[in-house]
Amino acid sequence: MTLNYFDHNATTRVDDAVIEAMLPFFQQEYGNASSRHALGTAARRAIDKAREQVAAAVGVQPVQVIFTSGGSEANNLFIRGAADSMRSGHLFISAIEHPCVLKPVQALTHRTGEHWTAHLMAVNQSGQIDVNRAQEEMRTQEPGLVSVMLANNETGVIQDVAAIAAIARERNDDTYVHTDAVQGLGKIPVDFSALNVHAMTLSAHKIYGPKGAAALVVDKRLLLKPLIYGGGHENGMRSGTENVPAIVGFGKASELAVARRVENAQHVTQLRDRLERGLVEMGAVIFGAAVERIPNTTYFALPDVEGDTLVVKLDKAGFAVASGAACSSVNPGQSHVLDAMQVDPILARCAVRVSFGSSNTIAQVEVFLAATKEIVDTLRNISSLTF
Amino acid sequence: MTLNYFDHNATTRVDDAVIEAMLPFFQQEYGNASSRHALGTAARRAIDKAREQVAAAVGVQPVQVIFTSGGSEANNLFIRGAADSMRSGHLFISAIEHPCVLKPVQALTHRTGEHWTAHLMAVNQSGQIDVNRAQEEMRTQEPGLVSVMLANNETGVIQDVAAIAAIARERNDDTYVHTDAVQGLGKIPVDFSALNVHAMTLSAHKIYGPKGAAALVVDKRLLLKPLIYGGGHENGMRSGTENVPAIVGFGKASELAVARRVENAQHVTQLRDRLERGLVEMGAVIFGAAVERIPNTTYFALPDVEGDTLVVKLDKAGFAVASGAACSSVNPGQSHVLDAMQVDPILARCAVRVSFGSSNTIAQVEVFLAATKEIVDTLRNISSLTF
Repeated sequence: MTLNYFDHNATTRVDDAVIEAMLPFFQQEYGNASSRHALGTAARRAIDKAREQVAAAVGVQPVQVIFTSGGSEANNLFIRGAADSMRSGHLFISAIEHPCVLKPVQALTHRTGEHWTAHLMAVNQSGQIDVNRAQEEMRTQEPGLVSVMLANNETGVIQDVAAIAAIARERNDDTYVHTDAVQGLGKIPVDFSALNVHAMTLSAHKIYGPKGAAALVVDKRLLLKPLIYGGGHENGMRSGTENVPAIVGFGKASELAVARRVENAQHVTQLRDRLERGLVEMGAVIFGAAVERIPNTTYFALPDVEGDTLVVKLDKAGFAVASGAACSSVNPGQSHVLDAMQVDPILARCAVRVSFGSSNTIAQVEVFLAATKEIVDTLRNISSLTF
Repeated sequence: MTLNYFDHNATTRVDDAVIEAMLPFFQQEYGNASSRHALGTAARRAIDKAREQVAAAVGVQPVQVIFTSGGSEANNLFIRGAADSMRSGHLFISAIEHPCVLKPVQALTHRTGEHWTAHLMAVNQSGQIDVNRAQEEMRTQEPGLVSVMLANNETGVIQDVAAIAAIARERNDDTYVHTDAVQGLGKIPVDFSALNVHAMTLSAHKIYGPKGAAALVVDKRLLLKPLIYGGGHENGMRSGTENVPAIVGFGKASELAVARRVENAQHVTQLRDRLERGLVEMGAVIFGAAVERIPNTTYFALPDVEGDTLVVKLDKAGFAVASGAACSSVNPGQSHVLDAMQVDPILARCAVRVSFGSSNTIAQVEVFLAATKEIVDTLRNISSLTF
């Protein structure tokens, strides 16, 4: 069966040009970048080039890029590393952050001897962080650390990171603002300075690069303690033998993500618009439809059709989609994002996410809509017979 | 120029069978292992298989394997994760541990609100941890955490981990003993139970596997806090999208490491014996020569020939070797291992490490000896002319 992969917010297929760039580093240029011989220096040069590529993608200098093994590590590095470098205080994150921001914040506030207080910034029913309310809260509680994702992985809703950063900075000169931008890169413009942040997380495997490489991009004045100590790699901020092939792939993928962004965005917007027209005709609710979203993502619910069931049936029909957030196994069947949006829990159980990528076609969308209609009709018939 | 790679303790070339196992997971089976569709479950199954392979290599159950992005992360996970799960107390590590054990210990003892005291266990002039002395020290200071590497990355000297573990366990029922076994696997037998430890670090890229995958193998009763929080991967002990290709490669490499160990060990022993005969004839000192070492490693010094200079000249002649530890950029030109062995600092500056691998040949060793002799003769002539 042809697989129709509609789950690009979970992970992506490695691009041909990316794997081609990576391959020499497994068996030919396989040196340790810390070695001083020719194989080592070749690896070091490859990392330097990748660092330039990643830096260029978000408009920073190469020295601002700290390579990590993944987005989760980068988010943890910011939360814990920045918290350990400053006086404890108030930490503001949105209620819809990824678990790899929510959980380290929770761990931090539970740590003995620490006095961090976490504030979950509320979102409106469209899934946007309520900037005015955040401003109110920051008026009474001075923000120490702030972390706000650029685009939500479930809804695709884009957040006004720059506005929140401006409020936090105005309130406290010494605040640090971070954004998890893994769902933004390659889909919308991502500029470090324009977002007004001190730190930003990027990840390779969301942009047709390999799993195993990501970055925390930092303001040069940001004080940070490492999560992983050792040989002093990445300017002492992240020790461990560099994953050269993955880093090389990340560099190439970043370059391509920027070069192809406009074209890809146009392409997936077309697919999404067709998809959403079809879904609405079937009676679907589209979460966040009224606000600005990354162009590849549709998060919908067909009332009375359980999301998990639909995902399984669509899988059998050859379509890979997600119910809730694919990368969280903490609360299966329950989306903290929809909770925060005050979506009726019964409707929330029907949530399914489609996230398109560059290789998807309008023909796939048509077949998907037909398949979904058939599944939904069958399920609704069964339930009308049963009850 | 043919490259003669003699730096296998720094990193290894990915084996053909390993890259073959990995390749499908970049572009065909590229799913996120947390996704519930067919591509996701295929990735999950691949990880399960790799977990079985790694577990089997050291005689444990799959559930005891926590995959990490590298050995440094695994060592940090043990040090910080175990320390955060127990009452603070005395931490015993050897003076010759890798920086990715030494530095997190240092960070721990410097943390505010913590009361960990670090004890560096001394080594003798052969580079072996002095077990009797360790026992003495543990008599007065009850060991909370213990970390002792199985084989030293510079000298290759094998440590009596089991004896130290027995002493620590006898002294304190609640102690946790860890061994960094990354330089042992594939070279000597590595059995989790026989070593009597609670945790063990393994790494793929030291055993012809890829960079980007490693493991902390744990006793099921070990209490640990994660270093990276998030979606709850690896039983909550290490969140983040799994690096499927690298983990698959690690599994395959572990299987091969065990299957080929005896044959490889015999092969590299032959090479090493020939090398050391030749070097001794040139007046070299071989560090740790009198004690049990992993079979692939020769750490030597040719008096009056600076290590760094020799490494550069050998590189130009087509030989990749290391001076000091390749993966430490903290103190270039100075080996904390030779310091601990009380090697004369002037001789220590002459240290060069050769670490053989399965693809090296006796012919390469002969050419290496000839090239070294030529370089050394030239350097000594220059210095006798100058002074």
